[in-house]
Amino acid sequence: MKIADLKLTTFRYRSRTVRDYEGHPHPGAEHWAANRLLTVVTDEGAEGYFVSGGCTPELVDGLLKPALVGEDPFFREMLHQRMQRIAKLTNLGEMAIGQVDNALWDLAGRTLNIPVYKMLGAARTKVLAYASTMPGDDMPGGLSTIEEYAAFAEQLVAQGYRAIKLHTWMPPIVPEPDVKREAALCAAVREAVGPDVDLMLDAHHHYDRHEALYLARECQRLGYVWIEEPMNESRLASYVWLRSKLDDLAVCGPEHAENGALTRVQWAERGGCDMLRAAAGSGGVTQIMKTIHLAEAYGMRMEVHSGGPDNLHVLCAMGINGKYYERGLVHPMRTFEVPFPWQKTHYDPLDAGGYVRVPERPGLGDDIDFDFIKANEVRSEHEVRS
Amino acid sequence: MKIADLKLTTFRYRSRTVRDYEGHPHPGAEHWAANRLLTVVTDEGAEGYFVSGGCTPELVDGLLKPALVGEDPFFREMLHQRMQRIAKLTNLGEMAIGQVDNALWDLAGRTLNIPVYKMLGAARTKVLAYASTMPGDDMPGGLSTIEEYAAFAEQLVAQGYRAIKLHTWMPPIVPEPDVKREAALCAAVREAVGPDVDLMLDAHHHYDRHEALYLARECQRLGYVWIEEPMNESRLASYVWLRSKLDDLAVCGPEHAENGALTRVQWAERGGCDMLRAAAGSGGVTQIMKTIHLAEAYGMRMEVHSGGPDNLHVLCAMGINGKYYERGLVHPMRTFEVPFPWQKTHYDPLDAGGYVRVPERPGLGDDIDFDFIKANEVRSEHEVRS
Repeated sequence: MKIADLKLTTFRYRSRTVRDYEGHPHPGAEHWAANRLLTVVTDEGAEGYFVSGGCTPELVDGLLKPALVGEDPFFREMLHQRMQRIAKLTNLGEMAIGQVDNALWDLAGRTLNIPVYKMLGAARTKVLAYASTMPGDDMPGGLSTIEEYAAFAEQLVAQGYRAIKLHTWMPPIVPEPDVKREAALCAAVREAVGPDVDLMLDAHHHYDRHEALYLARECQRLGYVWIEEPMNESRLASYVWLRSKLDDLAVCGPEHAENGALTRVQWAERGGCDMLRAAAGSGGVTQIMKTIHLAEAYGMRMEVHSGGPDNLHVLCAMGINGKYYERGLVHPMRTFEVPFPWQKTHYDPLDAGGYVRVPERPGLGDDIDFDFIKANEVRSEHEVRS
Repeated sequence: MKIADLKLTTFRYRSRTVRDYEGHPHPGAEHWAANRLLTVVTDEGAEGYFVSGGCTPELVDGLLKPALVGEDPFFREMLHQRMQRIAKLTNLGEMAIGQVDNALWDLAGRTLNIPVYKMLGAARTKVLAYASTMPGDDMPGGLSTIEEYAAFAEQLVAQGYRAIKLHTWMPPIVPEPDVKREAALCAAVREAVGPDVDLMLDAHHHYDRHEALYLARECQRLGYVWIEEPMNESRLASYVWLRSKLDDLAVCGPEHAENGALTRVQWAERGGCDMLRAAAGSGGVTQIMKTIHLAEAYGMRMEVHSGGPDNLHVLCAMGINGKYYERGLVHPMRTFEVPFPWQKTHYDPLDAGGYVRVPERPGLGDDIDFDFIKANEVRSEHEVRS
């Protein structure tokens, strides 16, 4: 079997999520937005799919087709190495490599008629979810006050969640993040949900060492499970320092360091974190499995970043305790309980026990609505809003 | 699909390999020997196989059947964790776990009609082989003198090998191994094959630090690629010391440390070796892939220990440079170019370029002669010689 073509379909859909100028998502007025379906086409008719914003038409035509067409799609490791080498000298990034790699896993699973987590070697079929909130905002009835966060947390527990991660106020919503206000928010949520709900904090990512320590110690005092990225993650030494000052609060990261296990081995070796973190969207299932195996060697938890079928499959193939699936982002003014417009069914419904089940369909099991995508195809992002 | 049964078939065959009392193999008079086929049987008729000496009837009946029967054979990661927990409190060892895990990979590949290296994500289809000699002996015409080693090395090069690893004289063949004689042997082999053949040394495993250093420096001077296990591998600090004294000779190991990546991370972190080492036979494909991924995180080579279809598949799914396939053990008085009696075809014939190709048959691709095994089944090891 050979890869015959890579097809990138840009499509538009109605969205009610907007992003502020630092990139944080919030609810907003309905508008057209764009997303992309990558299809790996083979000479034998088999196809693999992955929807994400990773690839662009320029990357697919200019870099990926020349590197992949004609190759056996089951040579994922060889192709991953090749893409990593290409990334060195071009603008091919990990999100694009991840979209390709995940489409290759999807193709393999669909061809073999087996879900990806069973190809990898399954460990479980469901994962405890945490509700991951949108970052704080300034919309009354949203997440604009400590009281609104606390009330929303109670609502999430009522919905079945046994764990909640807070994204709090960041610029530009607040010009100057304030660890005392963050700490007061963390305390109010703990007070609202009681001692038995697992809580985590993912706040402003640019505090200095002593701000991060203050906030982390408050989270520690409140029995939070972890703190995530309170400082720029390029500052490994600052994380080593922070962790040396803490007792039982875990530091979870790095979320954004590139090259998966190659950079994370330094965090593990130097003690920059208690739990490693990575997303399958960056570098694909191939790359994240290597970080998972690194974490297992170190006896560390590996908490997978972000949701989606790719992350759900790796979570269900993990031998070590990656305890949670990140579900959301959730917000009081927006339901997360419907599929995206390009999906026929929701891939991660929450069950009554607070768990999410891995899809048992072949491949990654994303129930893509190809008719919707075809009907809403646009030739360029220019066309999206026309 | 559920595991319905585990069947362990002990069979006998005519062998011309004998072991000395320290366990080293040598050519010998033809005699009956025993080996074992593990069959994982499922309720849907699918089966997976692995031939090795890992399991015993006691382990299968007493520990493995209760732990595995009724489970989905695609839950390899979950079952591997379970077997590791069982091993903690019982005499279930890594060779037994490896036989089970490899049979589960074989079952998966056979069920999905795909070779295991493509399930894992393929990287290549052939690997450069090194001829791995039997340890030195006292048989004239065998490997009893420096001259015989040198002549045999020339013969191996003529056969197509581009790399040779020497196992030299160990007790009880020599009561007191002598690094000067070892070094003279290494020099004679280098002299015989010239500068372009890759050479490695795997000598007596119980030298002290300064003996090991003398031998390693001689290997370094002779342009050897690596030295392997010149000291007891439980002595990590001694390996750190040895490595600190060397320049460009690689130390390859640990071969025998248990628990795969969990122990090897300490070798990588402390600098006890330049190349990691493990065998799929110990803990199975599931376990060795984690060590391979650890080595990749550290940018270290991972040189796979031992031959066999399991090791060949993982070598062909490695993204990092595990350069060699270990072929043998070879000896002047014994041909390695015929299948074992329980195989219909040889799984690792050497091509003209010195490479071995991965089997493209579904699963692990071992061409097992089930008729031979059935005809030679014995009820106990007692029966082998009767």
